[in-house]
Amino acid sequence: SARPHRLLPLSLGLFQAALLLFFALFVTYADPPAQEEDASLAAKQLSGIFPLFQDIQVMLVVGLGLLLTFLPRYGLSALTHNFLLLNFSTQWALVLQGLLHRFYRGHLHLQLRSLLVAEFAAVTVLISVGAVLGRTSPCQLLMVAACEVPAYLASEWVIATHLGVLDVGGTITIHVFSCYFGLGVSKALFGRARQPLHPKETPTPSSDLTSLLGTLILWVFWPSFVAVLCPAGDAQHRALLNTILAMSASAVTTVVASSLLEGGRLRPGDLQNGSLAGGVAIGAVADMTMPPVAALALGSLSATVCILGFRFLSPLLTRKLLLQDHCGIHNLHGLPGILGALASAAVILVAPKDTSASSFSQVSPAGVNASEVAVGQWGERGAGGQALCQAAGLAVAIGGSLLAGLLTGAMLRLPCLARPPEQHCFEDSLNFSTQGQAESLELGGTTEEGALALKERV
Amino acid sequence: SARPHRLLPLSLGLFQAALLLFFALFVTYADPPAQEEDASLAAKQLSGIFPLFQDIQVMLVVGLGLLLTFLPRYGLSALTHNFLLLNFSTQWALVLQGLLHRFYRGHLHLQLRSLLVAEFAAVTVLISVGAVLGRTSPCQLLMVAACEVPAYLASEWVIATHLGVLDVGGTITIHVFSCYFGLGVSKALFGRARQPLHPKETPTPSSDLTSLLGTLILWVFWPSFVAVLCPAGDAQHRALLNTILAMSASAVTTVVASSLLEGGRLRPGDLQNGSLAGGVAIGAVADMTMPPVAALALGSLSATVCILGFRFLSPLLTRKLLLQDHCGIHNLHGLPGILGALASAAVILVAPKDTSASSFSQVSPAGVNASEVAVGQWGERGAGGQALCQAAGLAVAIGGSLLAGLLTGAMLRLPCLARPPEQHCFEDSLNFSTQGQAESLELGGTTEEGALALKERV
Amino acid sequence: SARPHRLLPLSLGLFQAALLLFFALFVTYADPPAQEEDASLAAKQLSGIFPLFQDIQVMLVVGLGLLLTFLPRYGLSALTHNFLLLNFSTQWALVLQGLLHRFYRGHLHLQLRSLLVAEFAAVTVLISVGAVLGRTSPCQLLMVAACEVPAYLASEWVIATHLGVLDVGGTITIHVFSCYFGLGVSKALFGRARQPLHPKETPTPSSDLTSLLGTLILWVFWPSFVAVLCPAGDAQHRALLNTILAMSASAVTTVVASSLLEGGRLRPGDLQNGSLAGGVAIGAVADMTMPPVAALALGSLSATVCILGFRFLSPLLTRKLLLQDHCGIHNLHGLPGILGALASAAVILVAPKDTSASSFSQVSPAGVNASEVAVGQWGERGAGGQALCQAAGLAVAIGGSLLAGLLTGAMLRLPCLARPPEQHCFEDSLNFSTQGQAESLELGGTTEEGALALKERV
Repeated sequence: SARPHRLLPLSLGLFQAALLLFFALFVTYADPPAQEEDASLAAKQLSGIFPLFQDIQVMLVVGLGLLLTFLPRYGLSALTHNFLLLNFSTQWALVLQGLLHRFYRGHLHLQLRSLLVAEFAAVTVLISVGAVLGRTSPCQLLMVAACEVPAYLASEWVIATHLGVLDVGGTITIHVFSCYFGLGVSKALFGRARQPLHPKETPTPSSDLTSLLGTLILWVFWPSFVAVLCPAGDAQHRALLNTILAMSASAVTTVVASSLLEGGRLRPGDLQNGSLAGGVAIGAVADMTMPPVAALALGSLSATVCILGFRFLSPLLTRKLLLQDHCGIHNLHGLPGILGALASAAVILVAPKDTSASSFSQVSPAGVNASEVAVGQWGERGAGGQALCQAAGLAVAIGGSLLAGLLTGAMLRLPCLARPPEQHCFEDSLNFSTQGQAESLELGGTTEEGALALKERV
Repeated sequence: SARPHRLLPLSLGLFQAALLLFFALFVTYADPPAQEEDASLAAKQLSGIFPLFQDIQVMLVVGLGLLLTFLPRYGLSALTHNFLLLNFSTQWALVLQGLLHRFYRGHLHLQLRSLLVAEFAAVTVLISVGAVLGRTSPCQLLMVAACEVPAYLASEWVIATHLGVLDVGGTITIHVFSCYFGLGVSKALFGRARQPLHPKETPTPSSDLTSLLGTLILWVFWPSFVAVLCPAGDAQHRALLNTILAMSASAVTTVVASSLLEGGRLRPGDLQNGSLAGGVAIGAVADMTMPPVAALALGSLSATVCILGFRFLSPLLTRKLLLQDHCGIHNLHGLPGILGALASAAVILVAPKDTSASSFSQVSPAGVNASEVAVGQWGERGAGGQALCQAAGLAVAIGGSLLAGLLTGAMLRLPCLARPPEQHCFEDSLNFSTQGQAESLELGGTTEEGALALKERV
Repeated sequence: SARPHRLLPLSLGLFQAALLLFFALFVTYADPPAQEEDASLAAKQLSGIFPLFQDIQVMLVVGLGLLLTFLPRYGLSALTHNFLLLNFSTQWALVLQGLLHRFYRGHLHLQLRSLLVAEFAAVTVLISVGAVLGRTSPCQLLMVAACEVPAYLASEWVIATHLGVLDVGGTITIHVFSCYFGLGVSKALFGRARQPLHPKETPTPSSDLTSLLGTLILWVFWPSFVAVLCPAGDAQHRALLNTILAMSASAVTTVVASSLLEGGRLRPGDLQNGSLAGGVAIGAVADMTMPPVAALALGSLSATVCILGFRFLSPLLTRKLLLQDHCGIHNLHGLPGILGALASAAVILVAPKDTSASSFSQVSPAGVNASEVAVGQWGERGAGGQALCQAAGLAVAIGGSLLAGLLTGAMLRLPCLARPPEQHCFEDSLNFSTQGQAESLELGGTTEEGALALKERV
């Protein structure tokens, strides 16, 4: 029927119109600072945050997009859906944030920082859809985004603001949340029947190469992601160093673990994921005062856990729970995220009281933010109380996201959302029109198609 | 004949020698600041501008280069010609700028800012040659650069300095100018006969992927391009935010428009171009005080115009005017550029007088620049006068560039410039020596060639 | 036998354990600054250096990795080995630096700057292994890193600290050293028998494209590499400008030289290397007070030398000395490095005394560093003495690295290091497990393999 073909442009077009209306009514830029000094301070803050913002944009648009191109015939779709979801989710998060808690004299005053916070909401969507990559239509993906962004904002409010969980790099609020949300979606959508391994799921050397390139781009810019919301100065410096150390240890340990399990050789998938596990785990502790060895150890441990997860836990989950996880987000975001949350509780229990207090005393010039509120609460409730809070935050993230994900996944079964038929999964041709390819076939211009066509003729 | 083979190295070698001579005679670095304070200010400016400069370099060298690799057998040539033209045009613009108006006590004092302004001149060349991509020799491309850089400098002087047009992101001076210059070249060079669609012009999934990657890199760094010449502070912050909003709206609207026209699926070419249309259009208004919704609306509108242009206007121009535009620069740079120019006139007419005045009151520490002169003139001539000026600037950009482009294109018909024969167009083998490929063929190492050779044998 | 398969994970795992132990015992973060002013100064330094640090990370992880993918069936291995060696060598350099000369009250105080200096040590390894790319096992590469990092630290101490050689961009200490170290390794490892050209060594258009992409990324970010250790301010500005000019001249001259030698066409390998030669050569003189034309001339000259080296010197070395240099590091790092060292002596002899003194008077806020010690020594010993020192530094770099490289290469002949058999060289399948590829073959999913398999069947 023609209806599904029109659902994507119509729903997305309506959303754009609503966004324009919302912005027209409620969003302005902040007034320029009246004082010379304030203007100079604002310019300084902007020049401090903008390079990190650009690093994060590269991560999300280019790095994550390329990481998802490991499916050899689904590269264009993976890159495009990632890009579309990032933009849609960011806009949606801006609207919700404006509605929820950012009104100030009736208007949302847009700043680079608001965009950054909205992008963090979008990151959860980009991670979650990895669990169902290649077997979903764009409409289904937009529905995931529409449901996940409010769920994330609610969960983030409970965890960071209400419970006062310390999590500067989003280990709990972003990675753990998005992982279990994605698994919930996958279970509710696909979990009733065993899905055979689709032949087009197997990466080729060329698709493994572009995917590894995405990993490397993420690896390089990850420190910016973890440290961007830290107050400038000592805490930010420490967050950067801890992240770099953790990711360096992850990279080396990934090679150790993968070659140990594969008899001296490496699996491309291990490298693509294990190298990043340290960055996931370090987020909750990156700005705390802990010895550098803790960052190294956490990086090594999380890479090990990630690779063991791919080897032993994923097959088990597929077999026992009929759980599809195409990108292995449970191994990259779930397990290392849980590890990082537990590590944050441990560091809080062990860290010397006075040092850690002094390390957080530096107040961000942008004013008090959630992380500083949390630090204040930590001072009141003591190390034991704060460690319990970290564990409670982890539990909320897992429980809330699983529930929200299962509900979202159930909605994705609606027939109007046009789930692609099994034989067209993992195929760009489902999402892209390829007029003109017929002619080029005749000339051998398109290699893959050419080889295929040739084969059929032979 | 052997002559064309030597024309490229000889002419380019002579240019390099002349460049060395010019630099030896006329170019020095500025004296180091004598005062401690001046030195600290200069260091601050450098650390503010350098990250944006690097972003722009990535855009031009990597992003734009990759965007042009959509021709599956012409990727190396596209990347290389883009790189060569960037360097040649920047050097040429430095020489001309030095000769024209940058002399100060007999010497050009080279700064990072001079390089940046010279690169903006080079951008026009990189855009223009998109119209004739794949059907031109390197010598012809260098001739385009040799003619377009002085034409741009003259046009930019008339538009920005003489008319006082406000155009911080180069919508009129760069995008509109380079588009119609390129179309003029194409018309004069190819416009007498109908060119059939060359079979090698059709993208493959793999070449579409690398081209989309180029788009994404351009998309990420575009805010730096628009805001780099803004005075640091509030105006720059607003320029960044407006550009980000416009490009985000472009990305989503591109998916809407493309899937509406293609029955629910997407065309890769739409994504590669439409996502960037908002960045082209926003340049003329990015730093003005307007509500954020205007940036979103402009982004949506320009993406729509761009995609409609590809679908309806381009075929018409090809049929009626025999106009070749291989990259569709008219749809990405021409139409959104005109839209942006008209938007700037509208914003000037509508914007509240006092607010807009205050928004420009902040003087760049580097001293008064063209944009501030323009703001001053705006104050004198009123909103109506300034809006007329914007329209006049647009007319000058279109008329001047068309004329200059047609003249340049006529010169490109000189036989000595070695226009490639039709059957070798869109082929890397025309520009690159491929010794050693014969052996690898035997081993199936080179896939495309292998498949082709195999087919021929079968 | 099974032993070689376990050597990689066991040795690397042991190293990680030792690293953790070393960090636990000896490494801490610096105490947060006690004074408000110091904290603000530290934050300013961090925000100045971090964007350049990220640029360098992109160069080493993405740019250099991609540059090495010109071997069409060895892309995954090249990218992975580069990434592994970067991390291993950086960690190893941190340990050695801590042990050698960075102890301060018993502990190494880790800073971003320490990581940066450790990465410079790692760069030498990444360059050196280019000489033996594709014919070595990961264990052999790790052995190279284990030996080269201490040799580099010793050589750098002699050249920069003891001799007081001026070399802000590492022309002598990094490029010349790593080149001759790599050639020494290659000679000792392979130099007894003539190695025939391996058929899989020939690049394909697609592998040439990704390799050129790596070159372009290196080209864009090279100025950050040269200028990162300059004191902020005038010297850094000059270093950036000189590097940009040199690399721009290199890019154009590469096209001139390559097309002159190839009858109007270009060789991809020339572009991939020649465009970067200017960056190698400019390092020793980038921050000196010299007219801009000198940077242009040095860039042009070094590109010419690089391309002539590929055409005439490399075949000679292979024939006469049985020297393998798979990436041509002698042409990209050796010859331009020597040229740059000689240029530094010439600039010191010619530069006006007072100007050059004033140019170095600006003291880095981080305190006196090696380059400033050197400048002080220059003042004492006069221009002639300093020029001699530059020559002496060059001699030490070449002699020391050749000797250390030959010894290292001899150790690589140990059978336990599992040198790959000749028929499996230049093959990813040696280093990567490819389960699941058999099925995809049946569907033509993997193009290359598919075409190959098809051929065999035909």
